[in-house]
Amino acid sequence: MQNNLNYSIRIPSSTKKRIVIIGGGFGGIQLARGLKNKGFQVVLLDRHNYHTFQPLLYQVATAGLEPDSIAGPLRKLLQHYKDFYFRMALVNEIIPEKNMIDTTIGKLEYDYLVIAVGSKTNYFGQEERFDKAFPLKQIPQALDLRSQILQNFEKAIMTTDKEERQSLKNFVIVGGGPTGVEVAGALGELKMHVLPNDYKELDFEKMNIYLVEGQPRLLSGMSETASKKSYDFLKRFNVTVKLGTIVKAFDGKFVHLDDGMVIPSQTLVWAAGVTGNMIDGLSEEVIANGRIMVDEFNKVKSYENVFAIGDIALQKSKSFPNGLPMLAPVAMQQGKLLAKNLCHLKKGKAPLPFQYLDKGSMATIGRNKAVVDLKGIKFSGLFAWFVWMFVHLMSIIGFRNKLVVFSNWLWNYFTYDRGTRLIIRPFIRNPEKKKQREKVSVI
Amino acid sequence: MQNNLNYSIRIPSSTKKRIVIIGGGFGGIQLARGLKNKGFQVVLLDRHNYHTFQPLLYQVATAGLEPDSIAGPLRKLLQHYKDFYFRMALVNEIIPEKNMIDTTIGKLEYDYLVIAVGSKTNYFGQEERFDKAFPLKQIPQALDLRSQILQNFEKAIMTTDKEERQSLKNFVIVGGGPTGVEVAGALGELKMHVLPNDYKELDFEKMNIYLVEGQPRLLSGMSETASKKSYDFLKRFNVTVKLGTIVKAFDGKFVHLDDGMVIPSQTLVWAAGVTGNMIDGLSEEVIANGRIMVDEFNKVKSYENVFAIGDIALQKSKSFPNGLPMLAPVAMQQGKLLAKNLCHLKKGKAPLPFQYLDKGSMATIGRNKAVVDLKGIKFSGLFAWFVWMFVHLMSIIGFRNKLVVFSNWLWNYFTYDRGTRLIIRPFIRNPEKKKQREKVSVI
Repeated sequence: MQNNLNYSIRIPSSTKKRIVIIGGGFGGIQLARGLKNKGFQVVLLDRHNYHTFQPLLYQVATAGLEPDSIAGPLRKLLQHYKDFYFRMALVNEIIPEKNMIDTTIGKLEYDYLVIAVGSKTNYFGQEERFDKAFPLKQIPQALDLRSQILQNFEKAIMTTDKEERQSLKNFVIVGGGPTGVEVAGALGELKMHVLPNDYKELDFEKMNIYLVEGQPRLLSGMSETASKKSYDFLKRFNVTVKLGTIVKAFDGKFVHLDDGMVIPSQTLVWAAGVTGNMIDGLSEEVIANGRIMVDEFNKVKSYENVFAIGDIALQKSKSFPNGLPMLAPVAMQQGKLLAKNLCHLKKGKAPLPFQYLDKGSMATIGRNKAVVDLKGIKFSGLFAWFVWMFVHLMSIIGFRNKLVVFSNWLWNYFTYDRGTRLIIRPFIRNPEKKKQREKVSVI
Repeated sequence: MQNNLNYSIRIPSSTKKRIVIIGGGFGGIQLARGLKNKGFQVVLLDRHNYHTFQPLLYQVATAGLEPDSIAGPLRKLLQHYKDFYFRMALVNEIIPEKNMIDTTIGKLEYDYLVIAVGSKTNYFGQEERFDKAFPLKQIPQALDLRSQILQNFEKAIMTTDKEERQSLKNFVIVGGGPTGVEVAGALGELKMHVLPNDYKELDFEKMNIYLVEGQPRLLSGMSETASKKSYDFLKRFNVTVKLGTIVKAFDGKFVHLDDGMVIPSQTLVWAAGVTGNMIDGLSEEVIANGRIMVDEFNKVKSYENVFAIGDIALQKSKSFPNGLPMLAPVAMQQGKLLAKNLCHLKKGKAPLPFQYLDKGSMATIGRNKAVVDLKGIKFSGLFAWFVWMFVHLMSIIGFRNKLVVFSNWLWNYFTYDRGTRLIIRPFIRNPEKKKQREKVSVI
């Protein structure tokens, strides 16, 4: 931005207490909803003007859904809220001693601050070594991966170099958590049902999908049954699953594994993990493992009026001595309770401690296949797949999005088609600019 | 592309005659369809891997439709065709003396060549002066304009500079043809029904929409009735229509008109006209006004086996002494007849001359309002609007797209909402790179 001086956050002063929420993800949205017209002034900041339904990003990346269907414009979600302000901006720093944040559009004071910035792709300190990998945390990244996958096949037809052709048809996914498993399954489905119709000139027997996981099993956050089943399902899609294996390096042409294997591939999907999307300014002593330590009320230790919820918050409990998992349901439940607790605080009532209600977890592995862990019951297959679809459809924010996603799923299921396989890379792709791109802001 | 040497167009040789079609627009698609399994080898080239339904681009730009719903993946459209090849590439040059084209992925010989490259934005030789304007011919451009419009309001809230705020809320559209009128109408609707709910802090009385047209009337390709009605409709949306006025310059901050008026505006939508998307290599004598002169069989003059259809072709007739209009129906009818004529040629039968069947023309101006000119009957208003919607819905290629567009229209109509108002500018916007961006190719 050239003339930062002309911009200011411009929130009117109010007699009400001001709550500033950083981040419009699952936690931030639930909190904002809970605070609707409760006598606070609420300011929500986000780098995007939309909420992203991250669990379905992988379907955007694999041409199953349009990006617009998994995004909810934040202003729309919060349209009928009184004394509520949205600002599209990035936060540079928190200045807790002044009860103030510094953003790309200026400084803002708060009475209560809630950090709900979520997580970002975790390269485990090796950003440089993996700067050509494809992360999958934001809609522009999903669109970029979609373009890459399709472009690979267009190029595979045109190249005269046999080795290059193979490297265009090899896909490596690192990380055997839900995202990795789901991307691998979706690619398997593309290979089996969709792409061969489009690219008759290519031999799809030679399209190889590798899923590399450092742990000895897939879906290590779920049950052994789920791990085993997901492994079996991926095998049916001819996905090569490499467990207990680490990806050492990727130069855009070759993926190096720690067992000495070198896979020629131009596409490494990075689903190896996330870490807190840390903001500067808090005392070092409240930060651990890239997350902010909070007590059972989601209050940041040693600050009176600073809270953190969702992936960025590290909240330990008896059942989770290493902290609650970084999952949407945790963020949503924390957001909901924190809204209630802030109202309690206002009325002088005692806050309630957070208790995570684990409703279970699930992952899908292509057409008709999913694994579901509920309390006391674990199942997989077609019924699990329907449960997965129903739960996700109900969780997407907004009726329009539900409608569009549902229509697409029906279409994809019955036609074995993927409607959105467009290569849209409006600007020159320049790997050197990639890091810059991820930091793009409104101004 | 770094290693162009590794790429080749790789079309297998065939005993059949090879027809090369450059461009997968309305004309190219109709031609390909007409040639389906008729004993030719057909090669279709396009810079994108999808067909764009250009008449609805303005709805993508104004957040009414998702881009995927007006695009049809070309490989999908042509999936069941025998001896048919699609290549995503740009053509550098035609070498007619060798019956050959030179593309970004190598050279290819043809027996028959059909140029169906369509048109591009016409800056009337002043590209440099208007390099900050927003053209509207391709999907990435529509997405860029959508981001610009929404970002303007985000910034308008944040700026402390009153003049800048006004310039963010002023929109100037140059060109009073169907695209200009439709963009103005859609912006008028956003102003009236959609944006005030999102941006309660802004005064939308002060959002100004200017439509600037050099001719003394709007929609000069249609009837006087249509011109008058569209003018009246735009007035109801408070669009300021300036007829007989030329835009002289735009520096990204101010729009200068030839009547001396200077409009502070950061957004100039360029809908002032199109010109042929010319390819090098043809003799100068067959080119006129940026188009390729063809005879009544769409054969390029003085070449035996080179044809041109659609916007790029300049075909004069008794009713159109200056050439047929650059419209989708002309391109489609020409593509259809050329397919037939190429089959005739193969069988030694005489080709049929082209006769344009003008089914009428229409334009929409926001909710419930459209103008329609049919042979002998001209009407406007609600019924015209339904006719407009029906015709466009039926013309979109693919059932999935029809379904998604129809759902969106229902949604938009009944909720006064626009579902897709996302700011997605994945990469840094850099006006200096804009010209480069428009030339982006697969490799």
